[in-house]
Amino acid sequence: MTSRLIELRAGVLSKNDHLAAALRERFQGAGLLALNLVSGPGTGKTALLERTMGALIAGGSRPAALVGDLATDNDARRLARSGAPVRQIETGGLCHLEAQLVEGQLAAAGWALEQLDYLFIENVGNLVCPASYDLGEGLRVALVSAAEGEDKPLKYPAMFSSADAAVITKLDLAEPCELDLMLMRRNLHQVRPGITILETSARTGAGMGPWLAWLAEQRARASVRAGRET
Amino acid sequence: MTSRLIELRAGVLSKNDHLAAALRERFQGAGLLALNLVSGPGTGKTALLERTMGALIAGGSRPAALVGDLATDNDARRLARSGAPVRQIETGGLCHLEAQLVEGQLAAAGWALEQLDYLFIENVGNLVCPASYDLGEGLRVALVSAAEGEDKPLKYPAMFSSADAAVITKLDLAEPCELDLMLMRRNLHQVRPGITILETSARTGAGMGPWLAWLAEQRARASVRAGRET
Repeated sequence: MTSRLIELRAGVLSKNDHLAAALRERFQGAGLLALNLVSGPGTGKTALLERTMGALIAGGSRPAALVGDLATDNDARRLARSGAPVRQIETGGLCHLEAQLVEGQLAAAGWALEQLDYLFIENVGNLVCPASYDLGEGLRVALVSAAEGEDKPLKYPAMFSSADAAVITKLDLAEPCELDLMLMRRNLHQVRPGITILETSARTGAGMGPWLAWLAEQRARASVRAGRET
Repeated sequence: MTSRLIELRAGVLSKNDHLAAALRERFQGAGLLALNLVSGPGTGKTALLERTMGALIAGGSRPAALVGDLATDNDARRLARSGAPVRQIETGGLCHLEAQLVEGQLAAAGWALEQLDYLFIENVGNLVCPASYDLGEGLRVALVSAAEGEDKPLKYPAMFSSADAAVITKLDLAEPCELDLMLMRRNLHQVRPGITILETSARTGAGMGPWLAWLAEQRARASVRAGRET
C-alpha cells in the first residue's frame, strides 16, 4: 500500500513539475518576477504583502497577487485594498498550492502578464507540504516570525533549504519574545548556507527599505533575462 | 490519477483509524488520559508542556510525552529535563503523526501504561494535515498563539472543529500583538460551538491554574471510565 502511494505521489509531483516549468517559462518570457511566499500560519505573509504592494504601487510598479488558503477570502480582500489585481485560491482541504491551481487562476483572471512586474503567490500557511510543490516561481521566499522561535529552520529543513531568501517577520516582537536574532540567522545559514536574510516589521515598517531594494534588484535581473531571451 | 490517489489515501486513513481505535482501547483500559496536541509551528506546544509536566510531577502525577518533529530531537531533550519519560518521533518528511508511529514508539519505550496518568502526544507543527489522523487520543487540544492572529480558527477550520479544547498560548504577547481576544474566542466558537477555551502564558505562568485544573478533571473522568470497564 505504501509503495503504491509513493509511486502515485511521485506521478503527481512529476505532473506538477511539468506544469511549473511551463509557468516559469511564461513568467520569464513576460519579464515578470514571480515569488512563492511560504511560511507557517500567522507568520505575517499578508501583512508584509499589504505594505509591500502599497509601496510598489506608490513607486510606479505593477504588482499582482494570488493568495492560497484552505478557507475564507479574507486575505485577498485585505490585499485588494492596495488597488492591485488579487485573486484568492480556496484550496478546500488541500494543504499546499500546486502549479495547476496557479495556472487555473491566471487563466480565470485573464491578466496580461507582460503588463505586470511582480506576481506574489502567497502559499497556504504550512511549513511542510508546500516545500514539495514547484509553482513556477522565479524565487521562493520562506518567512519565519520573531515569535516562532530560533529553532524553526532546523525543525523544518526542507522548506528553508529550498528557499532562495528568508524573511524574519514581526521584528517588533523580537524584544518581548527575547528572540536571539544571531541564533536565528545562524540556524538559517546552517540549513541553507549563504541564504539572503531580510528582517522586517510590517507593523513599524522596519526593514521595509532593504526588502523593497532586494525585490527591485531581483526584478531587474528577471527583466534582463527576459530581454536576452526575446 | 487523482481518484486512484484519493482511494489509496482513504485506505491509509482507514488503516490508521483501526490502529487508533486499538490504541484508544489500551489507553482507556489503563485509565490513562492521552492528549493529542496540535498547532502550527512555533505556537509554543513544547513550552506549555515543559511547565505542565513540571507542575504535574510536583503534584504527584505521572505524565509521559511523545514528541513529533520532521527533524531534530530538541523538544524531547527539553521535556526530558522534567524527569518524565519522553521519546522523540522524528518523522523525516512526514507532515503529521500517525497511529502506527505512536504504537511503534510505545512498544519501543516499553512503558507500563497503567503506571502513567497522562500521555501528551505533541504532533508535528502543522495546522492542516494532522487533523485527518486519529492517534487514539482521549482528547485533541488545538493551540493557537496570541501572535498568530484572530483569523486562524476560520482559516484552518478542520483542525479547530475536530478539537475538544483550544488553548490560546503566549498570552503575554496579546498586548504587543494588539490581539482582540474576544474576536479570537468568537472565531473559535464559530468553527466549534461550545469548545472549551483555555488561555495561557508559559512565560509568565498566567492561566496555568485553570489549564491544570481542566487536565485533572479530564484525567478523573478517564479514570472513572477505566474503573467502570474493568
